[in-house]
Amino acid sequence: MNAEMPKPIEFWFSFGSPYSYFAALQIDALAARHGRRVDWRPFALGVAFKRSGMAPLVQQPMRGEYAMKDWERLGRLHRVSYAFPSRFPIDSLAPSRMYYAVEQEDAQRAHELARLFFKSYFGEDIDISDAPTAAKLGATLGLDEARLLAAAADPVWKDALRARTDEALAKGVFGAPFVIVDGEGFWGSDRLAMVEQWLQRGGW
Amino acid sequence: MNAEMPKPIEFWFSFGSPYSYFAALQIDALAARHGRRVDWRPFALGVAFKRSGMAPLVQQPMRGEYAMKDWERLGRLHRVSYAFPSRFPIDSLAPSRMYYAVEQEDAQRAHELARLFFKSYFGEDIDISDAPTAAKLGATLGLDEARLLAAAADPVWKDALRARTDEALAKGVFGAPFVIVDGEGFWGSDRLAMVEQWLQRGGW
Repeated sequence: MNAEMPKPIEFWFSFGSPYSYFAALQIDALAARHGRRVDWRPFALGVAFKRSGMAPLVQQPMRGEYAMKDWERLGRLHRVSYAFPSRFPIDSLAPSRMYYAVEQEDAQRAHELARLFFKSYFGEDIDISDAPTAAKLGATLGLDEARLLAAAADPVWKDALRARTDEALAKGVFGAPFVIVDGEGFWGSDRLAMVEQWLQRGGW
Repeated sequence: MNAEMPKPIEFWFSFGSPYSYFAALQIDALAARHGRRVDWRPFALGVAFKRSGMAPLVQQPMRGEYAMKDWERLGRLHRVSYAFPSRFPIDSLAPSRMYYAVEQEDAQRAHELARLFFKSYFGEDIDISDAPTAAKLGATLGLDEARLLAAAADPVWKDALRARTDEALAKGVFGAPFVIVDGEGFWGSDRLAMVEQWLQRGGW
Protein backbone atom coordinates (compact mmCIF):
# COMPACT_ATOMS: atom_id res chain seq x y z
CA MET A 1 0.00 0.00 0.00
CA ASN A 2 1.19 3.43 -0.99
CA ALA A 3 2.15 5.76 1.86
CA GLU A 4 0.56 8.73 0.09
CA MET A 5 -2.77 6.99 -0.19
CA PRO A 6 -5.42 8.61 2.02
CA LYS A 7 -7.09 6.42 4.62
CA PRO A 8 -10.21 4.56 3.50
CA ILE A 9 -13.58 5.80 4.65
CA GLU A 10 -15.20 3.44 7.14
CA PHE A 11 -18.81 2.64 6.31
CA TRP A 12 -20.48 0.95 9.28
CA PHE A 13 -23.89 -0.48 8.52
CA SER A 14 -26.44 -3.22 9.01
CA PHE A 15 -28.03 -5.22 6.18
CA GLY A 16 -31.35 -4.91 7.99
CA SER A 17 -31.34 -1.11 8.18
CA PRO A 18 -33.26 0.93 5.57
CA TYR A 19 -31.11 4.03 6.15
CA SER A 20 -28.04 1.84 5.58
CA TYR A 21 -29.54 0.72 2.27
CA PHE A 22 -29.94 4.29 1.00
CA ALA A 23 -26.37 5.15 2.06
CA ALA A 24 -24.94 1.94 0.59
CA LEU A 25 -26.11 2.94 -2.88
CA GLN A 26 -24.18 6.24 -2.68
CA ILE A 27 -21.07 5.71 -0.56
CA ASP A 28 -18.60 4.23 -3.10
CA ALA A 29 -19.31 6.94 -5.70
CA LEU A 30 -19.06 9.66 -3.07
CA ALA A 31 -15.69 8.37 -1.87
CA ALA A 32 -14.39 7.92 -5.43
CA ARG A 33 -15.14 11.60 -6.19
CA HIS A 34 -12.52 12.40 -3.55
CA GLY A 35 -10.02 9.69 -4.39
CA ARG A 36 -10.98 7.53 -1.43
CA ARG A 37 -11.74 3.88 -1.02
CA VAL A 38 -14.42 2.58 1.33
CA ASP A 39 -14.10 -0.13 3.95
CA TRP A 40 -17.58 -1.62 4.22
CA ARG A 41 -18.16 -2.75 7.78
CA PRO A 42 -21.35 -4.65 8.58
CA PHE A 43 -21.81 -5.03 12.33
CA ALA A 44 -24.38 -6.37 14.80
CA LEU A 45 -26.59 -3.29 15.23
CA GLY A 46 -28.66 -4.95 17.95
CA VAL A 47 -25.59 -5.07 20.20
CA ALA A 48 -25.01 -1.33 19.67
CA PHE A 49 -28.67 -0.67 20.44
CA LYS A 50 -28.34 -2.48 23.75
CA ARG A 51 -25.23 -0.50 24.66
CA SER A 52 -26.76 2.88 23.78
CA GLY A 53 -30.17 2.08 25.26
CA MET A 54 -31.98 2.29 21.91
CA ALA A 55 -34.68 0.07 20.45
CA PRO A 56 -35.18 -0.64 16.74
CA LEU A 57 -37.05 2.32 15.23
CA VAL A 58 -40.18 0.42 14.31
CA GLN A 59 -40.59 -0.63 17.94
CA GLN A 60 -40.56 2.98 19.15
CA PRO A 61 -43.91 4.75 19.59
CA MET A 62 -44.46 7.65 17.15
CA ARG A 63 -40.89 7.52 15.78
CA GLY A 64 -41.57 4.10 14.30
CA GLU A 65 -44.54 5.31 12.25
CA TYR A 66 -42.57 8.33 11.15
CA ALA A 67 -39.63 6.19 10.05
CA MET A 68 -41.90 4.07 7.84
CA LYS A 69 -42.98 7.22 5.98
CA ASP A 70 -39.45 8.63 5.89
CA TRP A 71 -38.09 5.48 4.23
CA GLU A 72 -40.82 5.54 1.56
CA ARG A 73 -39.98 9.18 0.90
CA LEU A 74 -36.23 8.52 0.66
CA GLY A 75 -36.85 5.69 -1.77
CA ARG A 76 -38.78 8.05 -4.05
CA LEU A 77 -36.26 10.85 -3.58
CA HIS A 78 -33.27 8.67 -4.47
CA ARG A 79 -35.29 6.97 -7.24
CA VAL A 80 -34.46 3.49 -6.00
CA SER A 81 -36.67 0.48 -5.50
CA TYR A 82 -37.87 0.41 -1.94
CA ALA A 83 -40.65 -1.48 -0.24
CA PHE A 84 -40.90 -2.19 3.46
CA PRO A 85 -40.03 -5.90 3.72
CA SER A 86 -42.72 -8.29 4.90
CA ARG A 87 -40.25 -9.64 7.47
CA PHE A 88 -38.73 -6.81 9.53
CA PRO A 89 -36.56 -6.40 11.50
CA ILE A 90 -34.31 -9.32 10.57
CA ASP A 91 -31.21 -10.88 12.04
CA SER A 92 -28.42 -9.99 9.61
CA LEU A 93 -25.70 -12.27 11.01
CA ALA A 94 -25.59 -14.68 8.04
CA PRO A 95 -25.15 -12.07 5.28
CA SER A 96 -22.67 -10.15 7.44
CA ARG A 97 -20.46 -13.20 7.96
CA MET A 98 -20.63 -14.03 4.25
CA TYR A 99 -19.60 -10.47 3.50
CA TYR A 100 -16.42 -10.74 5.59
CA ALA A 101 -15.57 -14.15 4.11
CA VAL A 102 -15.71 -12.71 0.58
CA GLU A 103 -14.02 -9.45 1.52
CA GLN A 104 -10.90 -11.26 2.69
CA GLU A 105 -10.35 -12.42 -0.89
CA ASP A 106 -11.82 -9.57 -2.94
CA ALA A 107 -13.19 -6.35 -1.47
CA GLN A 108 -14.88 -5.23 -4.71
CA ARG A 109 -16.78 -8.50 -5.05
CA ALA A 110 -17.77 -8.16 -1.41
CA HIS A 111 -19.21 -4.68 -2.07
CA GLU A 112 -21.16 -6.07 -5.01
CA LEU A 113 -22.48 -8.84 -2.80
CA ALA A 114 -23.45 -6.31 -0.13
CA ARG A 115 -25.34 -4.16 -2.64
CA LEU A 116 -27.11 -7.27 -3.94
CA PHE A 117 -28.15 -8.23 -0.39
CA PHE A 118 -29.52 -4.73 0.17
CA LYS A 119 -31.40 -4.56 -3.14
CA SER A 120 -32.82 -8.04 -2.64
CA TYR A 121 -34.10 -7.30 0.84
CA PHE A 122 -35.41 -3.75 0.39
CA GLY A 123 -36.21 -3.86 -3.31
CA GLU A 124 -37.51 -7.38 -3.80
CA ASP A 125 -38.62 -8.54 -0.36
CA ILE A 126 -36.17 -11.45 -0.30
CA ASP A 127 -35.38 -12.63 3.23
CA ILE A 128 -31.59 -12.36 3.31
CA SER A 129 -31.44 -13.44 6.97
CA ASP A 130 -31.95 -16.98 5.69
CA ALA A 131 -28.45 -18.33 4.98
CA PRO A 132 -29.37 -20.65 2.05
CA THR A 133 -31.26 -17.76 0.39
CA ALA A 134 -28.32 -15.39 0.89
CA ALA A 135 -25.86 -17.98 -0.47
CA LYS A 136 -28.04 -18.46 -3.57
CA LEU A 137 -27.95 -14.72 -4.20
CA GLY A 138 -24.16 -14.82 -3.97
CA ALA A 139 -24.09 -17.58 -6.58
CA THR A 140 -25.75 -15.23 -9.09
CA LEU A 141 -22.56 -13.15 -8.86
CA GLY A 142 -20.45 -16.21 -9.56
CA LEU A 143 -19.48 -16.78 -5.93
CA ASP A 144 -19.29 -20.32 -4.55
CA GLU A 145 -22.69 -21.05 -2.99
CA ALA A 146 -21.46 -23.86 -0.74
CA ARG A 147 -18.58 -21.79 0.61
CA LEU A 148 -20.91 -18.87 1.34
CA LEU A 149 -23.31 -21.14 3.17
CA ALA A 150 -20.44 -22.61 5.20
CA ALA A 151 -19.13 -19.11 6.05
CA ALA A 152 -22.44 -18.24 7.74
CA ALA A 153 -21.85 -20.94 10.36
CA ASP A 154 -18.03 -20.86 10.50
CA PRO A 155 -16.54 -19.80 13.87
CA VAL A 156 -13.88 -17.82 11.97
CA TRP A 157 -16.48 -15.48 10.47
CA LYS A 158 -18.60 -15.47 13.60
CA ASP A 159 -15.53 -14.19 15.45
CA ALA A 160 -14.71 -11.74 12.68
CA LEU A 161 -18.19 -10.19 12.91
CA ARG A 162 -17.99 -10.09 16.71
CA ALA A 163 -14.60 -8.36 16.53
CA ARG A 164 -15.94 -5.77 14.05
CA THR A 165 -18.92 -5.11 16.31
CA ASP A 166 -16.58 -4.55 19.27
CA GLU A 167 -14.51 -2.23 17.09
CA ALA A 168 -17.64 -0.29 16.12
CA LEU A 169 -18.66 0.18 19.74
CA ALA A 170 -15.11 1.24 20.70
CA LYS A 171 -15.29 3.89 17.96
CA GLY A 172 -18.58 5.29 19.25
CA VAL A 173 -20.79 3.76 16.55
CA PHE A 174 -24.29 3.53 18.05
CA GLY A 175 -26.47 3.42 14.95
CA ALA A 176 -26.42 2.68 11.24
CA PRO A 177 -25.26 3.83 8.84
CA PHE A 178 -22.28 5.47 10.51
CA VAL A 179 -19.45 6.86 8.41
CA ILE A 180 -16.00 7.58 9.84
CA VAL A 181 -13.63 9.81 7.85
CA ASP A 182 -10.19 10.43 9.32
CA GLY A 183 -11.55 9.79 12.81
CA GLU A 184 -14.61 12.05 12.37
CA GLY A 185 -17.94 10.25 12.75
CA PHE A 186 -21.15 10.97 10.82
CA TRP A 187 -24.38 9.20 11.72
CA GLY A 188 -27.21 8.67 9.28
CA SER A 189 -27.77 8.57 5.53
CA ASP A 190 -28.76 12.25 5.79
CA ARG A 191 -25.18 13.12 6.79
CA LEU A 192 -23.62 12.07 3.48
CA ALA A 193 -23.72 15.67 2.21
CA MET A 194 -21.76 16.67 5.30
CA VAL A 195 -19.27 13.86 4.68
CA GLU A 196 -18.81 15.24 1.17
CA GLN A 197 -18.17 18.76 2.51
CA TRP A 198 -15.66 17.34 4.95
CA LEU A 199 -13.81 15.57 2.12
CA GLN A 200 -13.87 18.69 -0.07
CA ARG A 201 -12.43 20.90 2.63
CA GLY A 202 -10.11 18.31 4.10
CA GLY A 203 -11.62 18.87 7.54
CA TRP A 204 -13.15 22.15 8.71
CA MET B 1 -57.53 35.73 4.75
CA ASN B 2 -57.38 35.06 1.07
CA ALA B 3 -58.86 31.75 -0.05
CA GLU B 4 -56.06 31.26 -2.58
CA MET B 5 -53.37 31.62 0.05
CA PRO B 6 -51.53 28.34 0.66
CA LYS B 7 -51.57 26.94 4.17
CA PRO B 8 -48.78 28.12 6.49
CA ILE B 9 -45.95 25.74 7.26
CA GLU B 10 -46.04 24.53 10.87
CA PHE B 11 -42.68 24.79 12.60
CA TRP B 12 -42.74 22.84 15.88
CA PHE B 13 -39.74 23.42 18.09
CA SER B 14 -38.29 23.86 21.55
CA PHE B 15 -36.23 26.87 22.65
CA GLY B 16 -33.89 24.46 24.45
CA SER B 17 -33.12 22.33 21.37
CA PRO B 18 -29.91 22.98 19.38
CA TYR B 19 -31.35 21.39 16.24
CA SER B 20 -34.36 23.69 16.59
CA TYR B 21 -31.98 26.65 16.75
CA PHE B 22 -30.31 25.76 13.45
CA ALA B 23 -33.70 25.25 11.78
CA ALA B 24 -35.14 28.47 13.26
CA LEU B 25 -32.51 30.54 11.47
CA GLN B 26 -33.56 29.10 8.09
CA ILE B 27 -37.26 28.35 8.15
CA ASP B 28 -38.80 31.77 7.38
CA ALA B 29 -36.52 32.36 4.36
CA LEU B 30 -37.15 28.83 3.09
CA ALA B 31 -40.91 29.29 3.32
CA ALA B 32 -40.78 32.75 1.72
CA ARG B 33 -38.97 31.31 -1.32
CA HIS B 34 -42.15 29.32 -1.94
CA GLY B 35 -44.67 31.99 -1.03
CA ARG B 36 -45.48 30.46 2.32
CA ARG B 37 -45.80 31.83 5.81
CA VAL B 38 -44.64 29.95 8.90
CA ASP B 39 -46.57 29.27 12.08
CA TRP B 40 -43.91 29.02 14.79
CA ARG B 41 -45.06 26.52 17.38
CA PRO B 42 -42.96 26.13 20.54
CA PHE B 43 -44.12 23.14 22.57
CA ALA B 44 -43.11 21.19 25.68
CA LEU B 45 -40.62 18.75 24.19
CA GLY B 46 -40.23 16.87 27.48
CA VAL B 47 -43.86 15.79 27.29
CA ALA B 48 -43.31 14.42 23.78
CA PHE B 49 -40.19 12.59 24.98
CA LYS B 50 -42.21 10.90 27.70
CA ARG B 51 -44.88 9.84 25.21
CA SER B 52 -42.41 8.46 22.68
CA GLY B 53 -40.13 6.86 25.28
CA MET B 54 -37.15 9.09 24.44
CA ALA B 55 -34.68 10.82 26.74
CA PRO B 56 -32.94 14.14 26.01
CA LEU B 57 -30.01 13.41 23.67
CA VAL B 58 -27.29 14.45 26.10
CA GLN B 59 -28.59 11.90 28.61
CA GLN B 60 -28.26 9.04 26.14
CA PRO B 61 -25.05 6.99 26.17
CA MET B 62 -22.94 7.38 22.99
CA ARG B 63 -25.63 9.38 21.17
CA GLY B 64 -25.20 12.24 23.65
CA GLU B 65 -21.49 12.63 22.96
CA TYR B 66 -22.11 12.41 19.25
CA ALA B 67 -24.80 15.10 19.41
CA MET B 68 -22.38 17.49 21.14
CA LYS B 69 -19.97 17.14 18.22
CA ASP B 70 -22.74 17.30 15.63
CA TRP B 71 -24.05 20.62 17.00
CA GLU B 72 -20.56 22.16 16.94
CA ARG B 73 -20.21 21.01 13.35
CA LEU B 74 -23.60 22.40 12.31
CA GLY B 75 -22.73 25.75 13.89
CA ARG B 76 -19.58 25.95 11.77
CA LEU B 77 -21.37 24.68 8.68
CA HIS B 78 -24.18 27.22 8.91
CA ARG B 79 -21.70 29.94 9.96
CA VAL B 80 -23.71 30.91 13.01
CA SER B 81 -22.63 31.54 16.58
CA TYR B 82 -22.98 28.37 18.56
CA ALA B 83 -21.59 27.32 21.91
CA PHE B 84 -23.00 24.57 24.09
CA PRO B 85 -24.72 26.50 26.91
CA SER B 86 -23.34 26.14 30.44
CA ARG B 87 -26.86 25.28 31.61
CA PHE B 88 -28.37 22.47 29.55
CA PRO B 89 -30.99 21.14 29.17
CA ILE B 90 -33.30 23.93 30.30
CA ASP B 91 -37.00 24.26 30.95
CA SER B 92 -38.31 26.45 28.14
CA LEU B 93 -41.81 27.09 29.51
CA ALA B 94 -41.30 30.81 30.24
CA PRO B 95 -40.00 31.85 26.80
CA SER B 96 -42.62 29.63 25.11
CA ARG B 97 -45.49 31.29 26.97
CA MET B 98 -44.06 34.74 26.19
CA TYR B 99 -43.88 33.74 22.55
CA TYR B 100 -47.59 32.91 22.37
CA ALA B 101 -48.54 36.09 24.23
CA VAL B 102 -46.68 38.21 21.66
CA GLU B 103 -47.83 36.13 18.70
CA GLN B 104 -51.46 36.83 19.43
CA GLU B 105 -50.81 40.51 18.72
CA ASP B 106 -48.05 40.39 16.12
CA ALA B 107 -46.66 37.19 14.60
CA GLN B 108 -43.63 38.89 13.00
CA ARG B 109 -42.56 40.41 16.32
CA ALA B 110 -43.03 37.01 17.92
CA HIS B 111 -40.71 35.41 15.34
CA GLU B 112 -38.12 38.13 16.06
CA LEU B 113 -38.45 37.42 19.76
CA ALA B 114 -38.05 33.68 19.16
CA ARG B 115 -34.89 34.22 17.09
CA LEU B 116 -33.52 36.48 19.84
CA PHE B 117 -34.21 33.82 22.48
CA PHE B 118 -32.41 31.21 20.36
CA LYS B 119 -29.40 33.44 19.62
CA SER B 120 -29.12 34.51 23.25
CA TYR B 121 -29.19 30.96 24.56
CA PHE B 122 -27.04 29.18 21.97
CA GLY B 123 -24.87 32.10 20.86
CA GLU B 124 -24.34 34.05 24.09
CA ASP B 125 -24.97 31.56 26.86
CA ILE B 126 -27.85 33.58 28.32
CA ASP B 127 -30.22 31.46 30.42
CA ILE B 128 -33.57 32.13 28.75
CA SER B 129 -35.37 29.70 31.07
CA ASP B 130 -35.23 32.48 33.67
CA ALA B 131 -38.39 34.57 33.11
CA PRO B 132 -36.93 37.97 34.17
CA THR B 133 -33.94 37.40 31.87
CA ALA B 134 -36.21 36.44 28.96
CA ALA B 135 -38.45 39.47 29.56
CA LYS B 136 -35.41 41.78 29.54
CA LEU B 137 -34.38 40.37 26.19
CA GLY B 138 -37.87 41.10 24.85
CA ALA B 139 -37.53 44.70 26.04
CA THR B 140 -34.52 45.16 23.74
CA LEU B 141 -36.96 44.62 20.86
CA GLY B 142 -39.29 47.29 22.27
CA LEU B 143 -41.70 44.81 23.81
CA ASP B 144 -43.23 45.56 27.23
CA GLU B 145 -41.00 43.87 29.81
CA ALA B 146 -43.61 43.77 32.58
CA ARG B 147 -46.23 42.25 30.27
CA LEU B 148 -43.78 39.59 29.09
CA LEU B 149 -42.89 38.69 32.66
CA ALA B 150 -46.57 38.45 33.56
CA ALA B 151 -47.26 36.24 30.53
CA ALA B 152 -44.78 33.64 31.79
CA ALA B 153 -46.96 33.01 34.86
CA ASP B 154 -50.38 33.73 33.34
CA PRO B 155 -52.80 30.75 33.26
CA VAL B 156 -53.98 31.90 29.83
CA TRP B 157 -50.55 31.32 28.30
CA LYS B 158 -49.88 28.25 30.41
CA ASP B 159 -53.04 26.78 28.91
CA ALA B 160 -52.11 27.96 25.43
CA LEU B 161 -48.76 26.17 25.61
CA ARG B 162 -50.40 23.05 26.99
CA ALA B 163 -52.95 23.06 24.17
CA ARG B 164 -50.19 23.47 21.56
CA THR B 165 -48.28 20.57 23.11
CA ASP B 166 -51.41 18.39 22.94
CA GLU B 167 -51.85 19.45 19.33
CA ALA B 168 -48.25 18.51 18.56
CA LEU B 169 -48.67 15.04 20.06
CA ALA B 170 -51.95 14.53 18.20
CA LYS B 171 -50.11 15.38 14.96
CA GLY B 172 -47.37 12.83 15.63
CA VAL B 173 -44.69 15.33 16.65
CA PHE B 174 -42.21 13.42 18.83
CA GLY B 175 -39.07 15.52 18.51
CA ALA B 176 -37.84 18.97 17.60
CA PRO B 177 -37.65 20.61 15.18
CA PHE B 178 -40.59 19.08 13.35
CA VAL B 179 -41.97 20.74 10.23
CA ILE B 180 -45.43 19.97 8.87
CA VAL B 181 -46.25 21.01 5.30
CA ASP B 182 -49.75 20.27 4.03
CA GLY B 183 -50.04 17.41 6.53
CA GLU B 184 -46.64 15.89 5.68
CA GLY B 185 -44.23 15.75 8.64
CA PHE B 186 -40.45 16.23 8.50
CA TRP B 187 -38.34 15.66 11.60
CA GLY B 188 -34.97 17.29 12.16
CA SER B 189 -33.04 20.30 10.93
CA ASP B 190 -31.43 17.97 8.38
CA ARG B 191 -34.80 17.50 6.67
CA LEU B 192 -35.15 21.14 5.56
CA ALA B 193 -33.71 20.31 2.14
CA MET B 194 -36.43 17.68 1.80
CA VAL B 195 -39.05 20.22 2.89
CA GLU B 196 -37.77 22.50 0.12
CA GLN B 197 -38.04 19.73 -2.47
CA TRP B 198 -41.56 19.03 -1.30
CA LEU B 199 -42.50 22.70 -1.72
CA GLN B 200 -40.87 22.89 -5.17
CA ARG B 201 -42.70 19.86 -6.45
CA GLY B 202 -45.93 20.51 -4.60
CA GLY B 203 -45.81 17.02 -3.13
CA TRP B 204 -44.12 14.02 -4.71
